[in-house]
Amino acid sequence: MDIPTFDDVLAAHERIAPYIHNTPVLTSSYLNKLSGAELFFKCENLQKVGAFKARGAINAVFGLDDDVAAKGVATHSSGNHAGALSYAAARRGITATVVMPRTAPETKKAAVRSYGGNILECEPTQAAREGMLEQVIADTGADMVHPYDDARVIAGQATCALELQREIENLDAVLAPIGGGGLISGTCLTLSQLSPRTRVFAAEPEAADDAYRSLQAGEIVLRDGQHSVADGLNTNLKPRTWHFVSSFIEEILLVSESEILDAMYLTWQRMKIIIEPSSAVPLAAILKYREKFQGLRVGIIITGGNVELQACPGCPQLGNTK
Amino acid sequence: MDIPTFDDVLAAHERIAPYIHNTPVLTSSYLNKLSGAELFFKCENLQKVGAFKARGAINAVFGLDDDVAAKGVATHSSGNHAGALSYAAARRGITATVVMPRTAPETKKAAVRSYGGNILECEPTQAAREGMLEQVIADTGADMVHPYDDARVIAGQATCALELQREIENLDAVLAPIGGGGLISGTCLTLSQLSPRTRVFAAEPEAADDAYRSLQAGEIVLRDGQHSVADGLNTNLKPRTWHFVSSFIEEILLVSESEILDAMYLTWQRMKIIIEPSSAVPLAAILKYREKFQGLRVGIIITGGNVELQACPGCPQLGNTK
Repeated sequence: MDIPTFDDVLAAHERIAPYIHNTPVLTSSYLNKLSGAELFFKCENLQKVGAFKARGAINAVFGLDDDVAAKGVATHSSGNHAGALSYAAARRGITATVVMPRTAPETKKAAVRSYGGNILECEPTQAAREGMLEQVIADTGADMVHPYDDARVIAGQATCALELQREIENLDAVLAPIGGGGLISGTCLTLSQLSPRTRVFAAEPEAADDAYRSLQAGEIVLRDGQHSVADGLNTNLKPRTWHFVSSFIEEILLVSESEILDAMYLTWQRMKIIIEPSSAVPLAAILKYREKFQGLRVGIIITGGNVELQACPGCPQLGNTK
Repeated sequence: MDIPTFDDVLAAHERIAPYIHNTPVLTSSYLNKLSGAELFFKCENLQKVGAFKARGAINAVFGLDDDVAAKGVATHSSGNHAGALSYAAARRGITATVVMPRTAPETKKAAVRSYGGNILECEPTQAAREGMLEQVIADTGADMVHPYDDARVIAGQATCALELQREIENLDAVLAPIGGGGLISGTCLTLSQLSPRTRVFAAEPEAADDAYRSLQAGEIVLRDGQHSVADGLNTNLKPRTWHFVSSFIEEILLVSESEILDAMYLTWQRMKIIIEPSSAVPLAAILKYREKFQGLRVGIIITGGNVELQACPGCPQLGNTK
């Protein structure tokens, strides 16, 4: 199993720099007061394709040799990785094929199409995704870029914490949401090298608490049938992410669905940025487990902003103003 | 009449720097494609108090001698200047009294209260505002900080274009909304000094087109009875802003109410930032008068993000998710 190293992270950052934004780190005195901590939000909702996933996908696609790249890339994804891989492939001028659950948010399907990616719809199960993807790869010879169980992708996602760490010194803790674990793995990889004293916390919905249960069990435990409003987090750990999660994470903090949505709307209202439900999970955790973060300097990775404004809970009917 | 100079702008920037954010400049390839121009958004919605008004208010408050400051400051404002002056006064430890129309958005009243400002409510007319404010000043000796007809305020607002110009070179045009004219006056002041080739456009709601009609008439024309959804722009020009508007502005571009709201939701959806209706007026103008901006590098000042998510048109009932 190939595990990325910190040198891979540095190489990834150089490779992807021309294609990504070095996203701003925002602060909010209101949220600092509310939490009792000093919070630094790394805003990947303002990233290309509206999510940190651009980093890993671009690193994978631009690292391919020309003859491999010519056969295209393929993946399965519930959302942002699909758009990100399509975007990366379009920038390189190659084909991207994406297997998506038919229940994926329309915004995320539209993003794939707008970047020129080909969508193949499947049933919303891990087995259906993986089966259909295998077939695509057998048929086309495309290079498989897994949304997180891929060393190139983890190295790419690790560049997010790299930028955060370079801009904000002396962080006591960093929080990121955990779904498949690609972002948190990259975060562990970067910080264990650059700032071992910074503790890495993962935040996870109670309704998709497989990573929490995995850490308790000491091995990968799969999701039960529940589905969180934080749609990007309804995925299982895989060997490469389990490697980092099991070794480097301080703790996994669980939050409820209403805590996630409250933190999301609070962020919209007070920080003036649109974040998707997955991105609100770390702030929800900080507000729930206040005592852990009192007086600390805490980095939070805002993972994406691809929410359907017309459809999100409690937010009906935007846009048609004529 | 005291008109600020560019030296005043440089002094203002130094004075306010410890209290404001140097806000990020964001780009969107989607909006570039849609407009045919290269757009650079200076995001003052991410500024302290959620609006550029922090700049002028802080410059005025921190420029006061101690004995004058001790009597406090006072103003009338339909919204963001009220919060900004309260914030600035609180940072300096002095009193702020704000005369607000009773119809002002609840978000903006709440902001004033949260910063410790005192609100006096009046009827929503210019005459009622000014009458009540005169009384306050007579009673307390407070220093009057007008929301825009004030050289210190214009110099403060001018620091926004200063930061934009230092970060983004070779802008062909800059657009800002026009209400009372403080921001656009400051923008003219900075750019006429630093980059005379950059053309300054003002964007204005058709429903509050007094600046447009003033430019046609060659003198200040007051608002008629209409009221735009861009609530920050329902104000009249004054002598100090008329000085800049009549001398330096290339053109005033008018847009309809639905064009403003469409541009606002488009910005929310594609740029992942919350902007208030006033802030959407320039983008609405660029999309309406596309031919003027084809292939140009265009700066846009996003003025603020203080919108009531629960109350804005087409956006009912956010937040209560339990």
